[in-house]
Amino acid sequence: MRVAILAHEKFPERAKTALGVLRYADYDVAAVLDRDSAGSRVSDYVPDVQDAPIVGGTDDLEEDAVDALLIGIAPIGGDFDERWRPDVRTALEYGCDIISGLHYFLENDEEFAELAEENGCELRDIRKPPADLTVAEGIAGDVDAEVITTVGTDCSVGKMTATMELARDARAAGYDVGVVPTGQTGIMIEGWGIPIDRVVGDFTAGAVEEMIVELGDEHDYLLVEGQGSLVHPAYSAVTCGILHGSMPDKLVLCHDAGRETIHGYESFDLPSIPTYVDLYETLSAPVAETEVVAGTLNTADLEDDAAREAVDEYADVLGVPATDVIRHDTDEMLEAIL
Amino acid sequence: MRVAILAHEKFPERAKTALGVLRYADYDVAAVLDRDSAGSRVSDYVPDVQDAPIVGGTDDLEEDAVDALLIGIAPIGGDFDERWRPDVRTALEYGCDIISGLHYFLENDEEFAELAEENGCELRDIRKPPADLTVAEGIAGDVDAEVITTVGTDCSVGKMTATMELARDARAAGYDVGVVPTGQTGIMIEGWGIPIDRVVGDFTAGAVEEMIVELGDEHDYLLVEGQGSLVHPAYSAVTCGILHGSMPDKLVLCHDAGRETIHGYESFDLPSIPTYVDLYETLSAPVAETEVVAGTLNTADLEDDAAREAVDEYADVLGVPATDVIRHDTDEMLEAIL
Repeated sequence: MRVAILAHEKFPERAKTALGVLRYADYDVAAVLDRDSAGSRVSDYVPDVQDAPIVGGTDDLEEDAVDALLIGIAPIGGDFDERWRPDVRTALEYGCDIISGLHYFLENDEEFAELAEENGCELRDIRKPPADLTVAEGIAGDVDAEVITTVGTDCSVGKMTATMELARDARAAGYDVGVVPTGQTGIMIEGWGIPIDRVVGDFTAGAVEEMIVELGDEHDYLLVEGQGSLVHPAYSAVTCGILHGSMPDKLVLCHDAGRETIHGYESFDLPSIPTYVDLYETLSAPVAETEVVAGTLNTADLEDDAAREAVDEYADVLGVPATDVIRHDTDEMLEAIL
Repeated sequence: MRVAILAHEKFPERAKTALGVLRYADYDVAAVLDRDSAGSRVSDYVPDVQDAPIVGGTDDLEEDAVDALLIGIAPIGGDFDERWRPDVRTALEYGCDIISGLHYFLENDEEFAELAEENGCELRDIRKPPADLTVAEGIAGDVDAEVITTVGTDCSVGKMTATMELARDARAAGYDVGVVPTGQTGIMIEGWGIPIDRVVGDFTAGAVEEMIVELGDEHDYLLVEGQGSLVHPAYSAVTCGILHGSMPDKLVLCHDAGRETIHGYESFDLPSIPTYVDLYETLSAPVAETEVVAGTLNTADLEDDAAREAVDEYADVLGVPATDVIRHDTDEMLEAIL
């Protein structure tokens, strides 16, 4: 499928979904929409992902250039930015489907719903959970697969990236690994999954359990994409539900080098790395005995030498193997988790 | 307002909502509906709450006997039991409102919606959260009031009861206390609140914060009703969101004497009481430094002497004052929490 990715004014650093899709999804990306960078190319900013031209809007594309427009931005709160409306409108007039992970459901937007109807397009609201979810039974631990869950020190520290990189490398090494996507980007990449942050509280663990039970007897290993952080002032509920719902055998702790306060909540300091390890392990224990067996560190802002040093220091503090999954290899990590 | 409370086959032990409403709400309860106990009275089973006759169904009431029918059962999963349909139908034909805390929204039931329309009745789905919730800002700790949150070792161990009893006794002693209800029964009793277990994961803490900010400058103390347990295989997400969203100054740990496994999930043992104290305090700390300052113990299944002994032992293990809020006085507890 050929897609255009909307990432206005945010590409690449603040368009996490766009970057994840460019890096891991099977889509053929025909263009990225960013009015601030129109005329340049993805490869001008990010060297190691699928390349594509950056254009100013859907108007700049040929009518039959893409099959779908994908919203590549995940704003806090998940609202629709009205400045994106002309791009979505034109895409629908071109006959394209729209793939969106916003909390604002496009299917409830009167104009978009009408245009989709008229032009035979689909509005795919990825963040809309299935209607038949229910409470967990506490049975995720019963599946044959070994369950490895990525957890984090904060939001946007690389849990989705770690999940995808480890899955890719493990598969390349011949392991039979399934991925359990819990967020919009992971779902867009894998083509299935439940957006756990959008599920009602009572069903959080149940939705994760449902996915694990569905996949758990088909693979030797399941990699569960984590969300948020256990000490996040806003999102810890989701993290806690994934931790207990997945009943993990092993945990991978993801961190961003240099992050000292919670992103967007700078009055809250991150606790120490050993505190995180202790919290994740002790909170999981009554439901599923588990331990942190590896760590990933995002070193994107560091020079090569400093990055290597930071990773080594992180591994030392953790007492288990660590790596930057984008910058370095994952051999030692795979040995630890598989 | 005069209400009838539906509690078929469950009154009193397994009709938690019915019991809470009888004990704490301002409603004038004209009857309890329980086909298994028709002909007896509430006082035959529970001595210390508002008395009312128990009847077999709405049919047994005079047409103008009540203003509303309240669903007094909170089944796991929150489904509507089709055997309740005739009672709800008759109540609507009588012109009564229906007050329901089920996950199944009565307003989406075609027959009930039509009958309500025809008879000018309201279908009040208490468990439907407001549509405009959003993510927490991490500001609940900024309110003037001191925030005290009840937390538990499991579901149904007395968090709502502790909240209501402590609020009542504190008010009687002249303290200015507000209650923040987070569950259906608390909301029915207080006449406001947000059903946190029904809020989408990303907004869990935000919904609690919104209530605290709304009330926090009007009272010296806020008592926040907790939900579930931090180590519950299904409901821990909700518990965690309330813990971080309320940013409590103090915690009250509620437990049920003799409970050794998680109710309905008997393959999971409850951890030790000190483990709970440690988990609640250490998980809260990065967002809000807090400590367990008191405990409540449900001793309903014990004889008087054994109850006193169990409470003393619980207080010893906790190292702070404890009581059974129904059976004993709360004087020492109030000193600890206020």
